[in-house]
Amino acid sequence: MINDKVIQLLEEMTIEEKIGQLTQFAGVFYSTSHSSTPVTGRIEFPVNQEMIDASGSVLGIAGAEKLLEIQKNHLEKNRLGIPLLFMADVINGFESIFPIPLGLGATWDPLLVEELQAVSAKEATSAGLHVSFAPMADLVRDPRWGRVMESTGEDPYLNSLFAKATVRGLQGSDLKNDSQHLAACVKHFAAYGLSEGGRDYNTVDLSERELREMHMPAYQAALDADVKLVMTAFNTVNSIPATGNKALLRDMLREEYGFDGVIISDFSAVQELIPHGVAEDEAEAAKKALDAGVDIDMMSLCYSHSLKRLIEEGKVELALLDEAVKRVLELKNELGLFEDPYRQTSVTREKETLTNSRHKELVRKAAEKSAVLLKNDNALPLSTSTNVALIGPYADNKDLLGEWSIFGKVEETDTLKDCMEKTFSHFAYSKGSEMYERNEKLLNEALYSASNADLIVLALGEGRERSGEGRSRASITLAPCQLELAKKLYELGKPIVVTLFNARPLDLTELEPYVNAILECWHPGSEGASAITNLLLGEANPSGKLTMSFPRTTGQVPVYYNAYTTGRPLPPGSDERFFSRYIDVANEPLYSFGFGLSYTSFKYSKLHLSSDQLTANESLTITLDITNAGEVSGEEIVQLYIQDPVAEVVRPGKELKGFQKIFLEAKETKTIQFEVTESMLRYYHSDLSYKSDSGTFHIYVGSSSESSKLTKLSFTLLDL
Amino acid sequence: MINDKVIQLLEEMTIEEKIGQLTQFAGVFYSTSHSSTPVTGRIEFPVNQEMIDASGSVLGIAGAEKLLEIQKNHLEKNRLGIPLLFMADVINGFESIFPIPLGLGATWDPLLVEELQAVSAKEATSAGLHVSFAPMADLVRDPRWGRVMESTGEDPYLNSLFAKATVRGLQGSDLKNDSQHLAACVKHFAAYGLSEGGRDYNTVDLSERELREMHMPAYQAALDADVKLVMTAFNTVNSIPATGNKALLRDMLREEYGFDGVIISDFSAVQELIPHGVAEDEAEAAKKALDAGVDIDMMSLCYSHSLKRLIEEGKVELALLDEAVKRVLELKNELGLFEDPYRQTSVTREKETLTNSRHKELVRKAAEKSAVLLKNDNALPLSTSTNVALIGPYADNKDLLGEWSIFGKVEETDTLKDCMEKTFSHFAYSKGSEMYERNEKLLNEALYSASNADLIVLALGEGRERSGEGRSRASITLAPCQLELAKKLYELGKPIVVTLFNARPLDLTELEPYVNAILECWHPGSEGASAITNLLLGEANPSGKLTMSFPRTTGQVPVYYNAYTTGRPLPPGSDERFFSRYIDVANEPLYSFGFGLSYTSFKYSKLHLSSDQLTANESLTITLDITNAGEVSGEEIVQLYIQDPVAEVVRPGKELKGFQKIFLEAKETKTIQFEVTESMLRYYHSDLSYKSDSGTFHIYVGSSSESSKLTKLSFTLLDL
Repeated sequence: MINDKVIQLLEEMTIEEKIGQLTQFAGVFYSTSHSSTPVTGRIEFPVNQEMIDASGSVLGIAGAEKLLEIQKNHLEKNRLGIPLLFMADVINGFESIFPIPLGLGATWDPLLVEELQAVSAKEATSAGLHVSFAPMADLVRDPRWGRVMESTGEDPYLNSLFAKATVRGLQGSDLKNDSQHLAACVKHFAAYGLSEGGRDYNTVDLSERELREMHMPAYQAALDADVKLVMTAFNTVNSIPATGNKALLRDMLREEYGFDGVIISDFSAVQELIPHGVAEDEAEAAKKALDAGVDIDMMSLCYSHSLKRLIEEGKVELALLDEAVKRVLELKNELGLFEDPYRQTSVTREKETLTNSRHKELVRKAAEKSAVLLKNDNALPLSTSTNVALIGPYADNKDLLGEWSIFGKVEETDTLKDCMEKTFSHFAYSKGSEMYERNEKLLNEALYSASNADLIVLALGEGRERSGEGRSRASITLAPCQLELAKKLYELGKPIVVTLFNARPLDLTELEPYVNAILECWHPGSEGASAITNLLLGEANPSGKLTMSFPRTTGQVPVYYNAYTTGRPLPPGSDERFFSRYIDVANEPLYSFGFGLSYTSFKYSKLHLSSDQLTANESLTITLDITNAGEVSGEEIVQLYIQDPVAEVVRPGKELKGFQKIFLEAKETKTIQFEVTESMLRYYHSDLSYKSDSGTFHIYVGSSSESSKLTKLSFTLLDL
Repeated sequence: MINDKVIQLLEEMTIEEKIGQLTQFAGVFYSTSHSSTPVTGRIEFPVNQEMIDASGSVLGIAGAEKLLEIQKNHLEKNRLGIPLLFMADVINGFESIFPIPLGLGATWDPLLVEELQAVSAKEATSAGLHVSFAPMADLVRDPRWGRVMESTGEDPYLNSLFAKATVRGLQGSDLKNDSQHLAACVKHFAAYGLSEGGRDYNTVDLSERELREMHMPAYQAALDADVKLVMTAFNTVNSIPATGNKALLRDMLREEYGFDGVIISDFSAVQELIPHGVAEDEAEAAKKALDAGVDIDMMSLCYSHSLKRLIEEGKVELALLDEAVKRVLELKNELGLFEDPYRQTSVTREKETLTNSRHKELVRKAAEKSAVLLKNDNALPLSTSTNVALIGPYADNKDLLGEWSIFGKVEETDTLKDCMEKTFSHFAYSKGSEMYERNEKLLNEALYSASNADLIVLALGEGRERSGEGRSRASITLAPCQLELAKKLYELGKPIVVTLFNARPLDLTELEPYVNAILECWHPGSEGASAITNLLLGEANPSGKLTMSFPRTTGQVPVYYNAYTTGRPLPPGSDERFFSRYIDVANEPLYSFGFGLSYTSFKYSKLHLSSDQLTANESLTITLDITNAGEVSGEEIVQLYIQDPVAEVVRPGKELKGFQKIFLEAKETKTIQFEVTESMLRYYHSDLSYKSDSGTFHIYVGSSSESSKLTKLSFTLLDL
């Protein structure tokens, strides 16, 4: 359909039909032959059949058979033949589940993520979906927040690359004709990651400069990649909830950033303007959201109940409604739904897609590359002949898919025990402890089992029920029963390798001294267990690096690598009083952004700059050699940080501005280069102008954000 | 001297003499007959005799004899006879030490604070001082920060009353002729209390609306009380360090708020613009600070080293220098120093003042009124015949004066043991533990001692070395050895009364179940031990209420009563997932703002409003009866909170808008009234306009900020 027809269609629509396009309800309200219960709604959500019939999109269901039927039923009833949009949270894979986004961040591999998201799109579209609520581009600094798992971490630059890669992977290059891709939706606009105290849905307050400097880049990157939808955040920005925030959505996102796709509220967020205290009732909430620019009201009844009356009473302009409806219709048109409302969905295609063995291979590779080796006192890798005791509540546990993998098949997921017992010739398993509660019998069994082994693989962590939305924790420690298990096993005097399955940075300070190796596995996905087994054996070499700092203790939060310089920076090694520090813990996290070990070691040499001066139109080249100094091949993530030591406003001590992921055979050396241009030196000034200042800049190149792992060079940016 | 003469004096001054007036060095650099070491400076602070001779003010020394001599020496050398200003941190008393400000906050008694600060001024001026760096008006929400002890708490309204009372008490009404008062200096401008992670000197970021709404009121209250000086904060505001922040100091403080007194930097804060990364060198730091409006450069050499050259090179206007110098001279003139550079200081006056027994009485009364009874399962009060064992590292400890009491006499301070052993007929003492380290021998002695008693008074806490500036803690728990001591004593099955000496809210969650009563004593001052003894015996009845929430755990920080409403407020008693909450701890603090018990109980009745409508020019009257339902007299702090449930921006769930501290004899009833006017309903809108909105408002009256302790009424503000 050409765009003129969208306008023509709009002209034919009644006001009720228009409002319907702006409402989205959960799939549970749509009858199919398998679930024919008539819609009665719940007391707390009194939706009726009329609303369902009028609605323009559906939330959170998938499956070719079901969606084909719902679409068909819908089109039969729909006067103008406007198809439904099917949207869902397909975050880290549809059925072939890859690691949670925080694990994907650790791959430092946007191309891999693009490939994974393309697989995700292929599977999701085969099951009838049109929109995925990904990427989440929220910058995160507080591991108490359960949703840090959905982010790629604490760095604006890296988050931008991943946001862009996710959009590209999901959307492909021709949504209209390519039914194997779907529309992406960047969320949560904006700055949701700053929820106060790490408590979900809590207040966010920050300066506009900080918003633009740290939080906006990743959303903007998604916009640059032509993301089709933006989802509003639950939180406030400048004291107004994002979902009713005209300055944020209309002035900034629409006008300044030029976004003309669909803005959708988060789940019930329009209605939440009432408890938030900025709307008296549903009508005021609806008016504020539409005025602000929210096109689709997801799972609230504000638009359904109130928009018609508001327009009739002249309180909302019809033009505003039309503008929103037009965007929804245009999205449907962009997806080719007017030509083929089923987008070539079929049960056969679905089956073929979901059994594609290449998907399995790819998600295993992703799990291997997302794992971060945090500690290794020569305990890893193992050999298949190692006499190993696998112990721990995560050892024989299928909970590896992560909280948002709603279409993943947990029951078909191999556990670490499943994979290891097939691989190791001398293998024993014992649970040792429940996940969160000690069990004396299990503990004793584990001690006995371990006493017969040469090495202990201890699978610890926290499950999906402690991660994700609505799962904030005031304390980010491991469960005491798991720590006790580690300490008791330690007394046996055998090497202990921890495989850690979790979805947020945990406080590992108490665990660390008792174990010889720690492999951070995240919630690694449907092929996670097999990937971890490969990593334990050295068949894959760990190459992941953290993209979110691991604090030494909850009370150190927020701790992140790109903090602003203070007037009293703590001199290295000092414990003097009058510096910016805690008296009971170091300033640095336990494991820093950019940190991760390998089974081999890399040497950096011959670092030099092509010039010590930079002009506006030229670039500098940084050249260095990387050598794999060890005995096995491996990948290194070479990191480039820049610091502007004197500026108009305070600036971070360092900021990631580039990186390269290099594969090196044992003993191999490669020469790599980074380009530095003036545009990389720009920042938001206090007047919100975005520009660079001439003067000295420092460059740090190395294997991690920790100062001790970096080599420093300097250059001067000449007057522009 | 009339003001014309100041201008005349200014005209006679050389540029060096002018710059001298803007520099302040520590007293250690000024020779007297008792410390005649010539000034050589330290490597890190290379001050020389010329700078000392030129300086306009001196930091942090006191004592009539010493200051008289320094002033005399100075005037002999000073070409124009411009006397020195002596400034120091006289925070909670000079020699008669009253509780730390966080304890003063708990009195809810600004008149008492005014009286205390008048005593402080009397003593400080007798020792030759002219300026005290009080009040600290920083709003505090993060107990990790060591300086929360210097604040009166988390409420803008209460902090405003205390800031005003402190200024009035220190300054009196006629500084020029009344040499028993001195100039006050409100600090730290602005929002220092929001240092990220509670780490001292750390970044502060917030929106301007939030700055104005929550943080500015208490500074403004000090300005309203005609405070003579303002000290800049160490932190950034909108990404620029306060000390070089023109928008903050010149545009907001000087132009908008009309402050024409002296702006002084905090210690070395001008120089810190360099490590902060907004100044290349001392010259740029000096220029930025002077441009921003900083008159006095405290303990940095930027002004001394650079201002002359900057003016000669035309980089700084002479008019800017003159303006700053004029303010310093005017302050000296306002203090009457041109008429009497010694302000009637004499060794005799000092001695008489510092031995005034009325001061002792008053600071004891303050300590009694600042204590907060957090728990009391009928364990308190005691009688003098109770067979009591006093145990704990704070039992025989003179560290009761608090971190800022630099002129207090620790060695002359009575310990709790000193007072209790004189009072109780059956008394035993045992230390039980070192403050932070367990000691098996002490523990066993304490268990033996306690086994012979009927009741245990357990004196726990943390000392001055864990509080105040540069003393941030990532964990706010009690020392493990103290918890162990409490648990071991608990096993004896005897009632345990904890007297807690500390300077920040602590995590008492682990202690609370093991003890029968907790009396929060703060660092109570020079008469603290005697005050606590009176409270234990019921000779004084606890009446203090918290002005800063006590979190359940460090990971709950920040937790404060006047938080903004969210879109998903947790329904009372709910533990459902999709609300704003932690999954491992309640949302509410362990002890809330406004909470504190008494030995009697108070009943609230007959609450009513004079009308359910309010207009712009009239007021509403809230009337209620308070009855002392118990057997002893006592004081109740009746609290009035208001909520604006629907506004243009999110608003706090409740805000303190009034309170009354009522003394009631046993069984007595009093009728009290609060007036509500439109001006109490104003807030900063998103466009920064300060006004009220018509509509419904809720009133909550009761004994604490906890919802369960409040009764709700509503009224409507009519269109203005």
